Amino acid sequence: MITVCLLGAGNVATHLFKAFNNAEHVSVLQWFNRDLKKLSTYKNDVLITNNIDTLKHADVYVLAVSDDAIADFSSQLPFENRFVVHTSGSVNVYDMDKKNRRGVFYPLQTFSKDIPVTFKEVPICIEALDKSDLNILKHLAENLGCSWYKINTEQRQTLHLSAVFVNNFTNQLYRIAHEISDAKSINFDILKPLILETARKVQETSPYMAQTGPAKRNDKKTIKRHLKLLENEQHKAIYELLTQSIKNTHGR
Amino acid sequence: MITVCLLGAGNVATHLFKAFNNAEHVSVLQWFNRDLKKLSTYKNDVLITNNIDTLKHADVYVLAVSDDAIADFSSQLPFENRFVVHTSGSVNVYDMDKKNRRGVFYPLQTFSKDIPVTFKEVPICIEALDKSDLNILKHLAENLGCSWYKINTEQRQTLHLSAVFVNNFTNQLYRIAHEISDAKSINFDILKPLILETARKVQETSPYMAQTGPAKRNDKKTIKRHLKLLENEQHKAIYELLTQSIKNTHGR
Repeated sequence: MITVCLLGAGNVATHLFKAFNNAEHVSVLQWFNRDLKKLSTYKNDVLITNNIDTLKHADVYVLAVSDDAIADFSSQLPFENRFVVHTSGSVNVYDMDKKNRRGVFYPLQTFSKDIPVTFKEVPICIEALDKSDLNILKHLAENLGCSWYKINTEQRQTLHLSAVFVNNFTNQLYRIAHEISDAKSINFDILKPLILETARKVQETSPYMAQTGPAKRNDKKTIKRHLKLLENEQHKAIYELLTQSIKNTHGR
Repeated sequence: MITVCLLGAGNVATHLFKAFNNAEHVSVLQWFNRDLKKLSTYKNDVLITNNIDTLKHADVYVLAVSDDAIADFSSQLPFENRFVVHTSGSVNVYDMDKKNRRGVFYPLQTFSKDIPVTFKEVPICIEALDKSDLNILKHLAENLGCSWYKINTEQRQTLHLSAVFVNNFTNQLYRIAHEISDAKSINFDILKPLILETARKVQETSPYMAQTGPAKRNDKKTIKRHLKLLENEQHKAIYELLTQSIKNTHGR
């Protein structure tokens, strides 16, 4: 059995709690948050507390708090030489107070408050300064049914950056398509199967191999017509920049 | 029974042939291509021909040829007043020769040669100058198990442009993430569940509501760190432009 104290009440904390709570060999001893009200939904499922001095002895303390709060929080912990991990994609493992053993348990997925996550599909990036602590994190990930990857801080920060490209920026391209099609009274539903298929394709083949379209073919006529259709200057700039990027990738 | 003559041998033609051939109430009378060799795989499944003068009388002639060839091809057809459709996202319905009745049967999906397509998930954008011809296209789409949308040429061209954003440009963002993570020896597999979840999310919720991340939060510290991590000037420019676009959308 791996015992866990969870700290924080955001999206990541809440999804982690549900995953830990569903795992047979993981026990959440306590869930801490300064504002107890945010945990009240779960008060019958787990011991909740807003007093950091009452934290029980656990195998892992999971700091699922905002990036800016991690360093401070790790200093305020009223114990030493225990195993403390944060869950951030961008914070250095050394930013935490060295009075405790340090590590990272970073689930690489997009978490929204009301959208359930199939946790076993979430890859966990783990890091620990001590080898036996790394094993705890491996077991913890495996108990959730997740794939884990040993990732150092530099790699994790690069992954976080890559995630911005494939998640936030991709989603913004969906948003632009939504705006463009809305303006011509086109049902956005028509584009949804294409969105899904584009994501599915790169599960099996590389994005390089999956590429198609006017930019890859250097089809100047279509590119020119598309630019003429775009009324928003920023959309035009995005079209031009990404077209150029595709041409560079495919040697046009 | 809807009878069809198919013309062309590219990806769209091939996927359409398979879909037509699997449909109970659709019969492909003939498959034409100038270069017969490209059809030879199917010579036992359908009558193939490279002689345009031998085309049989069908309910619909489907020109699944390249955009630039559509107008010419439609003029070369050795008959009049029959129903001819093209399958392009960008060619005007009026670009075809008016000696025949004209329409469009545009499947909005990304087709690759060797990747099978679940055709019933492909939305079909249909257009016809004559109301009874439109009914033929509705029935044809329904016989393939597809959703159909009545879309005029202007809307279709906008959809084609939107498709470039959600397919080609999105795929290029995947490619950039692949490059960035490869450079730090990070397994691209780690990003695949996030790619899929990002696409899944907008099946249920709008891209506007689905957005998260540093640009939406206007988290200047993270944005600055990300820009510092990016070594390629074009990647930096894409990061800055899409960050600005997200900020504009979310009023930052």
